[in-house]
Amino acid sequence: MNATGLIVDPLVLAQALIRCPSVTPADGGAQAVLAGTLERLGFSVTSLPFGDAGRQTPNLFARIGTSHPHLCFAGHTDVVPPGEATWQAPPFDGVLQDGVLYGRGACDMKGAIAAFVAAAATHLSARANPGSAGSISLLITGDEEGPALDGTVRVLDWMAAHGHTPDFCLVGEPTNPTELGQVIKIGRRGSLNAHIVVPGVQGHVAYPQVADNPVHRLLALLAELTTIPLDRGTAFFEPSSLQVTSIDVGNKEPNVIPAQAEAQLNIRFNDQHTGASLTTMLRGAMSRHAPTGRIDIRVSGEAFRTEPGPEVQALGDAIEIHTGRRPRLDTGGGTSDARFIARHCAVAEFGLVGESMHKADENVPVRDLALLSAIYLNMLDRIMAGAPA
Amino acid sequence: MNATGLIVDPLVLAQALIRCPSVTPADGGAQAVLAGTLERLGFSVTSLPFGDAGRQTPNLFARIGTSHPHLCFAGHTDVVPPGEATWQAPPFDGVLQDGVLYGRGACDMKGAIAAFVAAAATHLSARANPGSAGSISLLITGDEEGPALDGTVRVLDWMAAHGHTPDFCLVGEPTNPTELGQVIKIGRRGSLNAHIVVPGVQGHVAYPQVADNPVHRLLALLAELTTIPLDRGTAFFEPSSLQVTSIDVGNKEPNVIPAQAEAQLNIRFNDQHTGASLTTMLRGAMSRHAPTGRIDIRVSGEAFRTEPGPEVQALGDAIEIHTGRRPRLDTGGGTSDARFIARHCAVAEFGLVGESMHKADENVPVRDLALLSAIYLNMLDRIMAGAPA
Ligand SMILES: [Zn+2]
Ligand SMILES: [Zn+2]
Repeated sequence: MNATGLIVDPLVLAQALIRCPSVTPADGGAQAVLAGTLERLGFSVTSLPFGDAGRQTPNLFARIGTSHPHLCFAGHTDVVPPGEATWQAPPFDGVLQDGVLYGRGACDMKGAIAAFVAAAATHLSARANPGSAGSISLLITGDEEGPALDGTVRVLDWMAAHGHTPDFCLVGEPTNPTELGQVIKIGRRGSLNAHIVVPGVQGHVAYPQVADNPVHRLLALLAELTTIPLDRGTAFFEPSSLQVTSIDVGNKEPNVIPAQAEAQLNIRFNDQHTGASLTTMLRGAMSRHAPTGRIDIRVSGEAFRTEPGPEVQALGDAIEIHTGRRPRLDTGGGTSDARFIARHCAVAEFGLVGESMHKADENVPVRDLALLSAIYLNMLDRIMAGAPA
Repeated sequence: MNATGLIVDPLVLAQALIRCPSVTPADGGAQAVLAGTLERLGFSVTSLPFGDAGRQTPNLFARIGTSHPHLCFAGHTDVVPPGEATWQAPPFDGVLQDGVLYGRGACDMKGAIAAFVAAAATHLSARANPGSAGSISLLITGDEEGPALDGTVRVLDWMAAHGHTPDFCLVGEPTNPTELGQVIKIGRRGSLNAHIVVPGVQGHVAYPQVADNPVHRLLALLAELTTIPLDRGTAFFEPSSLQVTSIDVGNKEPNVIPAQAEAQLNIRFNDQHTGASLTTMLRGAMSRHAPTGRIDIRVSGEAFRTEPGPEVQALGDAIEIHTGRRPRLDTGGGTSDARFIARHCAVAEFGLVGESMHKADENVPVRDLALLSAIYLNMLDRIMAGAPA
């Protein structure tokens, strides 16, 4: 492997990637930059565009070696828009200032991709016989921040069909709240959105007995849903959380009981529930409080958790050696592509500090890029140490 | 009184009034028609326009006699718009068809005004010496269906200032649900509107612990207000009723906890409450559930009830003689100008059947016009019988 002995500087690669304006669904040349570097390191790279002609999602799969253990790094080259707030430095220039790299994608997650590629290069250059000691792959999509229909999900299916399903997958999302090394994510909560429409019978407030106030039905329904906790949490999961995000009636007449009321809610749920069990619960509450109402439910991800195995142990040890800190195994925060990967293999997430992600002046200290690359390298060395050299 | 011996046909006068298109704030000549008739009967009529120049509310006060008992009939010549539904006959033509008079105001309440004027004419024509046996007055406004700021309230103040405060006031609003003689209203519930704004702290649904969901605060507040009944009603009053008429958040982002939530509610309350006591109750609930929120409260009428005295007894007897039915003493339904009159003297309401009021094809059977006029006459005879002839 990597017989060339090439070394990759994570800062240089991160800058090159940031300079590709890859706001979903655009690619901006980001995947070509990455593919070129990986090919020079000896990876065989497959471009995997999926979706309708004309608006295909760019994806790539790259692997070096064919033996086990097979560790895959998963990530995305697309970024969210720079937003309306003014940036101190242009968001796609990759400006370095006082030891900090600025740019959209710096921490989410072009920086982490660069750190991993650099770690892989160093790991491989230390090996005598490429292909003999396990294998390393990268699953990179250009649609994680978008609808994610033709991204990671499709690549995973392709990988399964071609014998590339890994033993363990590491997702490079920013997992640390404020300092590198705080958190490894070993699962995520599921997410469910519901839209509720409750019809009633319009009338005058002076004659409520001949009307049927849909706001009162909705109130009773939502009061029940927000009063009774869904659960108390588990060793690895926070309690599930139901948030009513909007109620809309739009009645401007103060003396009129309206004909309809609507609401929208989101549930972030742990592995004590499934989308199906929550759907049953919601429909039951509807039938009690608003039997003529309508509820549209969309489950955008089930809860999942990886039983921490030797790879998570190796990652934790690598983090502790380089930061002096034992990371917390956590399942909080929003959803990520890890929910799709969990259907195929063990998965954990560890990346940079997420404080500036999706905000103006997104950035990463160069120190953190180097530190993350060192952690990834130490983890690779530990995992591959079990494999024949 | 009425030395002329003039008789008034309630149908002819009702038709003449309906033919004046007096949609609030327009008068359409209605008050001049009425003033002319009353003057011919011997009433002294005072025109009392109040309000800003250019958009004054037409009102009139007419009285015959100066002695007690002084009975006042209160009503309005303005009408609500014909609406968008198609009428079988034009709404301001006063068409008579199969014994039914059609037109906007037929039952609310040009018909009742005509019935009362006809009753007064007959009552007075039977008397020997005008001015000796009690006195009869009419308080007629042209703004009952509108904001009612420069109508009945102002005329009552003028009457008080000029020694015209009556002993008893009869309001001619349609009080009967389906048949003439069913209901005398001896009070009305009060009405209070409140607008609530609850601020919160915006955030992502995945991190509810760092947000403060204003929808949940509002839900807890409104659930409390709609779950605990305000009272159980009294002998004369229905239970008070609180109706939440709108909740508005307007959040289109399913994964965002919004920054603010608003609601609007109305309370129809009986005489176990006052606007002040309900304001204290609402502010208390706000301070528990949404201490940083804002509530704007407007009390548009206090609950009131007249202790049924000899005049209500006389009206009930007159109704029973002509319809065979003892009317129910009731306080239900919407507000009327009676709430203003109650501050000055005893008041009760009795008029036509209200089924078609404010609807297309508003109408009154000629039979009901004659019957109401006969009831009013019998009542006048009974009340004035106590007075020296
Ligand atoms: Zn990301
Ligand atoms: Zn009316």
